[in-house]
Amino acid sequence: MNAKLKGKMLIGQSGGPTAVINQSLIGAIIAAKSQENITGILGAKHGIQGIMDEDFIDLSAYELAKLERIAITPAAALGSVRLKPGKAECVRVFEVFKKHDIRYFFYIGGNDSAETAHIISEMAKEAQYDFCTVHIPKTIDNDLKVTDHCPGFASAAKFVAQAFMGDDRDNRALKGIKVNVVMGRHAGFLTAASALARQGDESRGPHLIYMPERAFDRAQFQQDVRQVHAKWGRCVIAVSEGISDTEGTPILSSNEKDSHGNVQLSGTGALGDYLSALIKDAFSEPMRVRADTFGYLQRSFPGVISEVDAQEARMVGTYGVEQAVQQASSGSVAIRRLSDKPYESDCFMTPLSSVARESTEMKDAWIHENGHDITEDFLTYLTPLVGELPIVDEF
Amino acid sequence: MNAKLKGKMLIGQSGGPTAVINQSLIGAIIAAKSQENITGILGAKHGIQGIMDEDFIDLSAYELAKLERIAITPAAALGSVRLKPGKAECVRVFEVFKKHDIRYFFYIGGNDSAETAHIISEMAKEAQYDFCTVHIPKTIDNDLKVTDHCPGFASAAKFVAQAFMGDDRDNRALKGIKVNVVMGRHAGFLTAASALARQGDESRGPHLIYMPERAFDRAQFQQDVRQVHAKWGRCVIAVSEGISDTEGTPILSSNEKDSHGNVQLSGTGALGDYLSALIKDAFSEPMRVRADTFGYLQRSFPGVISEVDAQEARMVGTYGVEQAVQQASSGSVAIRRLSDKPYESDCFMTPLSSVARESTEMKDAWIHENGHDITEDFLTYLTPLVGELPIVDEF
Repeated sequence: MNAKLKGKMLIGQSGGPTAVINQSLIGAIIAAKSQENITGILGAKHGIQGIMDEDFIDLSAYELAKLERIAITPAAALGSVRLKPGKAECVRVFEVFKKHDIRYFFYIGGNDSAETAHIISEMAKEAQYDFCTVHIPKTIDNDLKVTDHCPGFASAAKFVAQAFMGDDRDNRALKGIKVNVVMGRHAGFLTAASALARQGDESRGPHLIYMPERAFDRAQFQQDVRQVHAKWGRCVIAVSEGISDTEGTPILSSNEKDSHGNVQLSGTGALGDYLSALIKDAFSEPMRVRADTFGYLQRSFPGVISEVDAQEARMVGTYGVEQAVQQASSGSVAIRRLSDKPYESDCFMTPLSSVARESTEMKDAWIHENGHDITEDFLTYLTPLVGELPIVDEF
Repeated sequence: MNAKLKGKMLIGQSGGPTAVINQSLIGAIIAAKSQENITGILGAKHGIQGIMDEDFIDLSAYELAKLERIAITPAAALGSVRLKPGKAECVRVFEVFKKHDIRYFFYIGGNDSAETAHIISEMAKEAQYDFCTVHIPKTIDNDLKVTDHCPGFASAAKFVAQAFMGDDRDNRALKGIKVNVVMGRHAGFLTAASALARQGDESRGPHLIYMPERAFDRAQFQQDVRQVHAKWGRCVIAVSEGISDTEGTPILSSNEKDSHGNVQLSGTGALGDYLSALIKDAFSEPMRVRADTFGYLQRSFPGVISEVDAQEARMVGTYGVEQAVQQASSGSVAIRRLSDKPYESDCFMTPLSSVARESTEMKDAWIHENGHDITEDFLTYLTPLVGELPIVDEF
């Protein structure tokens, strides 16, 4: 125990919201309350932006019942931000840290947030400011390195699975071809989770699953859809928003970019409408083709939460604070899977540099060789994270 | 008791699926099993289409446990159809009824289905064929006449409310302007249900609610959004897919029509994208504007079900069969509200002609005079139908 590192902690949230990101926040706050070395618990509103603006909330002031209500609320309760600090911003952040005697900084976010935490950690070393920064993972994309999976993913996966369960029944009732566009810029995990909807025989959809890890060939897609339609008289399709063609060009891209340079893919129905048109062109007779884009619902829907996900999101927050105080060293919290059946996991610390900036994607062993489906291995990985799903049945 | 009307019953489902339409189906099947006058229970696949094709399932063959699993499955388990029978089809339907000694016909659907039931009922009278046809109501649009509300609506309303609860938190975390397009061609009930998401102070969204009952003025819309954004730094908007301008022209219409002559509004993101562009044009600086179209998820999502809705959907199925056997006369089942607190309802029969073809919409007393909000009266009407919602809270 390093008794020297005593001071206030600051916690912030960054990047896209998830349904359980506040579990991590509340886990960290509750853990911090019993740490003598933590002399104050501040929340930064809208992440790095709130630090620069000194826009803080005193988080030690809230009752447990209030904290628990916030824990089950989707989307960053402190406010989030999509801002990667440059040199000038980092200088400002340090001024603020010193001014407020902040010795612990916890940043809940994805790989961009890990990079921010890493940059700040390196600056603290250079400045010989005695300081500890911990990245607490979250992302519905499930694309962080090192960790077995990311808090936030399994609840989004549950939403996607339930959506496809119902939509497949809808498509069976009123036959046609249905495209559902799922979040996932470079990683197909969430789109692949649609496969959990197949409770039953092979007639159950989704019948085709296109992930960004495989090049999207328009002509092949049209042929795939024709084949499924010929067999079942209908077709339900899951498509990642980030699919690209064989040259690596996104099938659909707009001009709007966020401050990380990422192109806007969500919050528009354009890709779904484009794929609908491709499908209509693939048939000589008129087809009933519909497309839905799941959009922000899949990351912030209250009431459709994976229990494992909620527990693990709480766990990484708690663990991050405990480790920071015990070790007084910076790092990123990761999840280790101990067992599939019964499902068990624990946490460990990994260097910030091992998580920052870069991301992972679906393993080759998880993608079917036909390029438009997943494997049993992937279901073994995913099923315990998502947990129980509703029952659907048919005559 | 009219002991003369003895024979087989046929049941079918029609129109857009709902999350509880199979509760009505299973309620009818279970009720029929104990009726001596019902000598067989047949299900028509895909409604009228299945009758013409004699594509039937023997529904008396299934065990109770199987039936109960189907009851909780969203979307028409018998298959649905959007087909209004013409003269030739009706002649064919009668041939089939006589051939199979069908004396009871139950059709679960909206006003188009009630009209089909009515036409068949009238033909039976003319042909002096001893016969009873009962329309069992369902529609997420909640636009049937006579009944207090329609089975299927409250579960879709619950989905919409939860979606807005989460999306409002998402929008609070990452500020901007968000449009959500909700189903509803002529009636704004489902869009209006988004108001249930406002658990808390007036900063909670949706901040603007546009229903098809009021003309949509583009310039007024832009001004409304600017005002909300100036006040809260963000804006969450609920819009019915069927909004039309002051001349009655739909804001966005495609060329695709179904067999009832209805224009396709769902299954495309075009309206949301159009409104996003309108909003961007309303500001001099660049705005973060996103649009989601809830699409088919809102009518077929398993696991987000109103308990009252599920119970009432079962009730109308059971009641329809019992009344048909006891009264041996045709009609449509309607729900009567007995009390708001505690919520209580029962059923009664209304003539098919009172429900067929025409539809209702939101009462004037339920729409705020500003034209982009609902009233307390509407919340009094809606709240007991939807039941408990998840908790969301904030610092």
